[in-house]
Amino acid sequence: MNRSGFFYDLLSTLFERTDFARAKGDGRSITELCEDLIASQGEVSGDNMGRQILTRFSELTPDGEIEFFNYLTEHMDIDTGRLQTLAASYQAERSPETFASLVAAAEPKRQELLRRINRVQGATGELVKMRSRLLRLLKDHPSFGRTDLDFQHLFGSWFNRGFLLPRRIHWQSPANILEKIIKYEAVHAIDDWDDLRRRVEPADRRCYAFFHPAMPDDPLIFVEVALVRGVPNSVQAILAENREILNPESADTAVFYSISNCQTGLRGVSFGNSLIKQVVEDLRAEVKSITTFVTLSPIPGLNRWLRQSHAAQAGAAGGGDLEAAVESAIETGDLAGLRDQAPWLRRQAADYLVNQKDRHGMPLDPVARFHLGNGAMIHDIHAAADLSPNGVRQSCGLMVNYLYDLKKISQFHEGFAENHTVFTSREVRALADAAAANSNSRKAKNGA
Amino acid sequence: MNRSGFFYDLLSTLFERTDFARAKGDGRSITELCEDLIASQGEVSGDNMGRQILTRFSELTPDGEIEFFNYLTEHMDIDTGRLQTLAASYQAERSPETFASLVAAAEPKRQELLRRINRVQGATGELVKMRSRLLRLLKDHPSFGRTDLDFQHLFGSWFNRGFLLPRRIHWQSPANILEKIIKYEAVHAIDDWDDLRRRVEPADRRCYAFFHPAMPDDPLIFVEVALVRGVPNSVQAILAENREILNPESADTAVFYSISNCQTGLRGVSFGNSLIKQVVEDLRAEVKSITTFVTLSPIPGLNRWLRQSHAAQAGAAGGGDLEAAVESAIETGDLAGLRDQAPWLRRQAADYLVNQKDRHGMPLDPVARFHLGNGAMIHDIHAAADLSPNGVRQSCGLMVNYLYDLKKISQFHEGFAENHTVFTSREVRALADAAAANSNSRKAKNGA
Amino acid sequence: MNRSGFFYDLLSTLFERTDFARAKGDGRSITELCEDLIASQGEVSGDNMGRQILTRFSELTPDGEIEFFNYLTEHMDIDTGRLQTLAASYQAERSPETFASLVAAAEPKRQELLRRINRVQGATGELVKMRSRLLRLLKDHPSFGRTDLDFQHLFGSWFNRGFLLPRRIHWQSPANILEKIIKYEAVHAIDDWDDLRRRVEPADRRCYAFFHPAMPDDPLIFVEVALVRGVPNSVQAILAENREILNPESADTAVFYSISNCQTGLRGVSFGNSLIKQVVEDLRAEVKSITTFVTLSPIPGLNRWLRQSHAAQAGAAGGGDLEAAVESAIETGDLAGLRDQAPWLRRQAADYLVNQKDRHGMPLDPVARFHLGNGAMIHDIHAAADLSPNGVRQSCGLMVNYLYDLKKISQFHEGFAENHTVFTSREVRALADAAAANSNSRKAKNGA
Amino acid sequence: MNRSGFFYDLLSTLFERTDFARAKGDGRSITELCEDLIASQGEVSGDNMGRQILTRFSELTPDGEIEFFNYLTEHMDIDTGRLQTLAASYQAERSPETFASLVAAAEPKRQELLRRINRVQGATGELVKMRSRLLRLLKDHPSFGRTDLDFQHLFGSWFNRGFLLPRRIHWQSPANILEKIIKYEAVHAIDDWDDLRRRVEPADRRCYAFFHPAMPDDPLIFVEVALVRGVPNSVQAILAENREILNPESADTAVFYSISNCQTGLRGVSFGNSLIKQVVEDLRAEVKSITTFVTLSPIPGLNRWLRQSHAAQAGAAGGGDLEAAVESAIETGDLAGLRDQAPWLRRQAADYLVNQKDRHGMPLDPVARFHLGNGAMIHDIHAAADLSPNGVRQSCGLMVNYLYDLKKISQFHEGFAENHTVFTSREVRALADAAAANSNSRKAKNGA
Repeated sequence: MNRSGFFYDLLSTLFERTDFARAKGDGRSITELCEDLIASQGEVSGDNMGRQILTRFSELTPDGEIEFFNYLTEHMDIDTGRLQTLAASYQAERSPETFASLVAAAEPKRQELLRRINRVQGATGELVKMRSRLLRLLKDHPSFGRTDLDFQHLFGSWFNRGFLLPRRIHWQSPANILEKIIKYEAVHAIDDWDDLRRRVEPADRRCYAFFHPAMPDDPLIFVEVALVRGVPNSVQAILAENREILNPESADTAVFYSISNCQTGLRGVSFGNSLIKQVVEDLRAEVKSITTFVTLSPIPGLNRWLRQSHAAQAGAAGGGDLEAAVESAIETGDLAGLRDQAPWLRRQAADYLVNQKDRHGMPLDPVARFHLGNGAMIHDIHAAADLSPNGVRQSCGLMVNYLYDLKKISQFHEGFAENHTVFTSREVRALADAAAANSNSRKAKNGA
Repeated sequence: MNRSGFFYDLLSTLFERTDFARAKGDGRSITELCEDLIASQGEVSGDNMGRQILTRFSELTPDGEIEFFNYLTEHMDIDTGRLQTLAASYQAERSPETFASLVAAAEPKRQELLRRINRVQGATGELVKMRSRLLRLLKDHPSFGRTDLDFQHLFGSWFNRGFLLPRRIHWQSPANILEKIIKYEAVHAIDDWDDLRRRVEPADRRCYAFFHPAMPDDPLIFVEVALVRGVPNSVQAILAENREILNPESADTAVFYSISNCQTGLRGVSFGNSLIKQVVEDLRAEVKSITTFVTLSPIPGLNRWLRQSHAAQAGAAGGGDLEAAVESAIETGDLAGLRDQAPWLRRQAADYLVNQKDRHGMPLDPVARFHLGNGAMIHDIHAAADLSPNGVRQSCGLMVNYLYDLKKISQFHEGFAENHTVFTSREVRALADAAAANSNSRKAKNGA
Repeated sequence: MNRSGFFYDLLSTLFERTDFARAKGDGRSITELCEDLIASQGEVSGDNMGRQILTRFSELTPDGEIEFFNYLTEHMDIDTGRLQTLAASYQAERSPETFASLVAAAEPKRQELLRRINRVQGATGELVKMRSRLLRLLKDHPSFGRTDLDFQHLFGSWFNRGFLLPRRIHWQSPANILEKIIKYEAVHAIDDWDDLRRRVEPADRRCYAFFHPAMPDDPLIFVEVALVRGVPNSVQAILAENREILNPESADTAVFYSISNCQTGLRGVSFGNSLIKQVVEDLRAEVKSITTFVTLSPIPGLNRWLRQSHAAQAGAAGGGDLEAAVESAIETGDLAGLRDQAPWLRRQAADYLVNQKDRHGMPLDPVARFHLGNGAMIHDIHAAADLSPNGVRQSCGLMVNYLYDLKKISQFHEGFAENHTVFTSREVRALADAAAANSNSRKAKNGA
Repeated sequence: MNRSGFFYDLLSTLFERTDFARAKGDGRSITELCEDLIASQGEVSGDNMGRQILTRFSELTPDGEIEFFNYLTEHMDIDTGRLQTLAASYQAERSPETFASLVAAAEPKRQELLRRINRVQGATGELVKMRSRLLRLLKDHPSFGRTDLDFQHLFGSWFNRGFLLPRRIHWQSPANILEKIIKYEAVHAIDDWDDLRRRVEPADRRCYAFFHPAMPDDPLIFVEVALVRGVPNSVQAILAENREILNPESADTAVFYSISNCQTGLRGVSFGNSLIKQVVEDLRAEVKSITTFVTLSPIPGLNRWLRQSHAAQAGAAGGGDLEAAVESAIETGDLAGLRDQAPWLRRQAADYLVNQKDRHGMPLDPVARFHLGNGAMIHDIHAAADLSPNGVRQSCGLMVNYLYDLKKISQFHEGFAENHTVFTSREVRALADAAAANSNSRKAKNGA
């Protein structure tokens, strides 16, 4: 007998307004519409202009898109001259009036433009798509990075953690949501509806997602969880078709084996930490027997690093020609070669995850950065843990457990945030040390 | 057989996170917590600091509040020197990097602080309350207006029209929502639950509100509507206890007879226009017979203006001692005096609403500004339309119908927005002209 | 993150069909309509006839109602001649065909009539009302008892426990449901909305109800629960306006202090046992600290029995003129007299509850029969426990705790069901024995 | 802004109790449990016995099932001797008491047994399954027909139209419901999730189902509808993968092209009529442009009848060897032969549908009986309308439109119900007459 239903009702209205309704054009170009929208007073005509801008944008050619973003970047920018003048005025007299003028001038006009467009029902999702288009152009048009910063700033405010709706995804979920889970799964591809069902229906499987009220049809991020006994060392075991289903109350460990961001257009707006935190809280309340929260994570950058690093070049200590070995293993399905090198590979992975840093002093591996940043520690490294072609190709089949130790999350988080300290289990530390020692001795030998 | 129920489910999560959970303090002062929160990396410890800040704020003494807002205003302000330097850098080289530095410096730190506090579950409502405290201090501490601008800026973004949830309020609504309708009604007070029921239960009455997903328990604004035959000229007739209930399908007119903003802390963030627009759309779809959308609105500034203006002073054309007449009418309940002056009062009201302008060229009356700004026109003016003490005291019992003519809303809106043109019916125009002519001839006589 | 929302959606359809829509008559009388409905094939025209019958019934005069029920009783009865013939046929040849004929003849036509009426949307509630009318006539028209048996039989099937929807009632519940709680409260009257709120809003109060999908606006039964420390001995303490609210997690006891059946028309269809069972299950899951489930119940028949029994007559052992004492206590508000007699009254109450039986060997008190039948035991008896006029008038202010000991419910239920054994605590047993001994010795003295 | 959400909440409880929880046995046999359950007083222990009976039943061997149903049929039957005695008593004295005894004896004990089992949460669906097992045994155990009558009687009461929940099925529906649509589709098989999506997602497709509150996971019946322009003559055109999607507002016709009962165990409990009625009402309200409601229905018995009838035997008027032609057409995919015979086939189908009757005077075709019984008329007959192997095999690819003319449904329903009158369009009448004339002249020629 849970509590009130008014809120269900409240959200029914979300649905009615979900779809963005296209608007017929009235002859104005998209940039004219933007000019008019930013100049307009009141909302009555603004809604129509906002709708037209979104419709028009969706019909632009690739060149048209470039032109449009160029317009946003160059014509809706900050007027630096004016800004300097107003900053001086404010410096001279710190009144609400001078402040108001200053902050108005300090924000590029395109921010207000995007806010006004966002008043249209269903616009939020369209703006997220708009940014995903922008992101594809960034490489060739680096100046658009200025406009992108404004998108990111606004999205950070709109997709504030306090506005997100956590939601369990299961076999009773709507098909239109489930098909998006299939589509967005980025770590271990979901083959079809039967594969999906194996991940969301059994009593020892969970899937959770975050939604935003303005995009109720579209998950922002989701995580897949397996309830198991003991910390797992193989994702294929987790995904096996004919595995035995565990009574959740017999499980002692929750494994986060896949986390996928769904919206390219929300890059840089972080949800993963909050989702993991929420799921840990929910699972603790629901399944009392679970005491260990751990991931089984890919090491996406391992092989790239191995190739680049001395280790791969020198082929030392059983290295061999990694690339060839990997491709041959995938082609023949014969992974014996990789298995033989398991001890060496685990040491290399530990070295890569624990010791190797970028110029900011952060771990090279993005997944490591994510979980360590959340306050996790590196618990274990497994060879032959992901034997899919993708798993072999990116990390010779190795995977890693990041452990979320509830009592130490804050401490680890602080340590990593402030000093980039990488916390590990003793075993992983030993592996990393062994690799480092080996590497140093090699370097010493080489007279480096 | 309406569509999907996933969304009801989605919102169930809103409920679970509605309540703001207080946090125990850890010895740091509220300003220390603010410093630490703004300096922190990552979200893990941020949540706890945000929660502590809100808890601490709710416990502040009046002096403590002043000190806190002073801290926000003076210590979390824009560094104008730095801003000028960075504006110059950006002017010199318009790169994403210089732009990023500029926009970071162009925003007062308190904005980021408030955004970080808002990550905490239930924080949004607490921040709205925080601003309502701030607003009370503005008069004595005008410098706080700078901080207030930042609140308003953020709220404008968070309470974007696209995120609001329109909701019908009726007798099946939750009691905790209904009691807030009683509490927030600002125009025609609701005496008790029976009075409330008369406004939301009968088939010819409607009430609609906007909610925000982060404050599902608390309406932002609501409007009360009566479905009637013909344009009404008395609010007491609408609110009468024993009136006959009309079959909605016999109604031809929807009367917006009360609009109340609920959250002081959201002052300056406008919802009324959107709500009226939404309600008109909904009613048109639901009750086909309704073709006229009109308000029955107070004229809150009429008596004040009458007292101040020549009309009251001169007591011309049947003016008399207005103030005394009003008080006596209220005390004795004898409104005959006011009725006698109905023709003169209607002319004065028309003059006040149509001809009298502030220094920006806008109508003096705030309700007139609101509806005219939405694209309505002044349709009619009624004497003896609100005979409650409040109605007599503020406008000698006069009320006004603003008409929303769906075919002309855009045109009227534009005309008013651009040229402050006040559109009226012929009759009201004639009343206003008569009053103006009279006044001019009087002035001429007086040699003015 | 609870599970699916499809079901919310599913029930949305309940709402659309809740209201019974009246039908215009077509000239046929209500009995003609009944004849035609029972004779009709298919549903198309049946729906309309069913709707007309319900509309027509609601418009009947008192005499018309009697005529109608008489028609149901006498003209829609079993044809016993035909039944005997068909019973003989079936006895001779036990085939599906002879069986079908027999069971068709063995059921009064009015049952099929009521089933067909019930196909109409919203009819179930109307039929419940129809029976409540019938029940009022039973005393003067005992033959209607035959029709009543058919109503009860059908309702027993339709309101099967498996179809009921348990629901928590709280301050977020719809006002139209809450006003029914006010209306239906049968034990301790709810004065107004503030009183209601005190019973459903505080964290240490609960209210649960059963609904039926075909009557979603109308509770069938509800129970009010207080979470407290220790077994309570005063209902006024529970209902006090200014009591301190307890953190539920500090409570060790759940007190069922009021159970009200809402639908007269469902008399004889029992829900109370199931509701208590459901609430106990829910509370155990929700509030782990609660280990004791107990009632604080009225003893509605105590004073009547006292007046009738020797005890009252003889005025023995401190009896006195009970009736006069009671009325004077109520009038003067001086309950000292009753307090003085507390020991004697508790013994009498124990005697009444434990020892006194009706001709079926069941306890005289209906509330005792209900809880003992559910598997509860008599735990304690309190004087000065309900000092409201009603409480004093029915039981001199005494109340009783029935204890639901989860480990013994089945055993006690069986013992009571089979042998009418009344299980009690030692203390209550001692009180009852003392009263019985006293009474016997008195009888012995009196030579009875 | 639709109305209240309490009901969504209400139904949330449905979900919590959906699953039938199995019970451990306590050593008693299933028939001992039945004896004990029927003998028990009160509900406390009854629940457990009911749960055990259902669990035990689900584990029975085929022989065990026969034994169990035999027990129900023979040991829980009516005691005819006692029934006759009590009928005589009631004949002698028509009191509520004699009536109560009579009706208690007139009902087989197994009805009360099933009602008591049904009190268990989730039992209803289990009992429906139980009957589906019983139905499979009926042919070999005709005496079980007596028990089956009791199941049907109870289900008729429990699944009363007034308790059913109509629900639209769409692509936002839960996957666990959608997979049941795939499974239960009985007319035009759904190949996979893509095929399903084509039937429920496009704007010009609809699917509606009935649910029962006690089985919220399992549809009872569903209908698939296409919104089209003009009355369709080919189901393959409706199901085509690459057809153009129609704007619903351009449609003038709603085609019911598939109706499937989902629960074998509910055979004889009719929902189809109500569902069609509900869908017609909903579509009329939602899509104003639709004025024609028509089916595109199979003629399942046509070929069987053709083979049996003189027409097929004589091979007259282009008949030929039907069976061989059909099989060759299916095998080769060459349907030219069938197309050539279209005029003759349409006449035969008209004859079969309109003129041919069973011994009760009803049409031979079950689908015809269903729609005509609902008040539809035969509107048109199409050759080459279902060219799937199944369509060719059962009816040479012919299909029929039954038209629901809203103004005549009642009249047609009555005419068919009372006189078995088959209403048709002129064209179909002409076809049927021509076939009959031809057949008569042939019979005349043959001297028959």
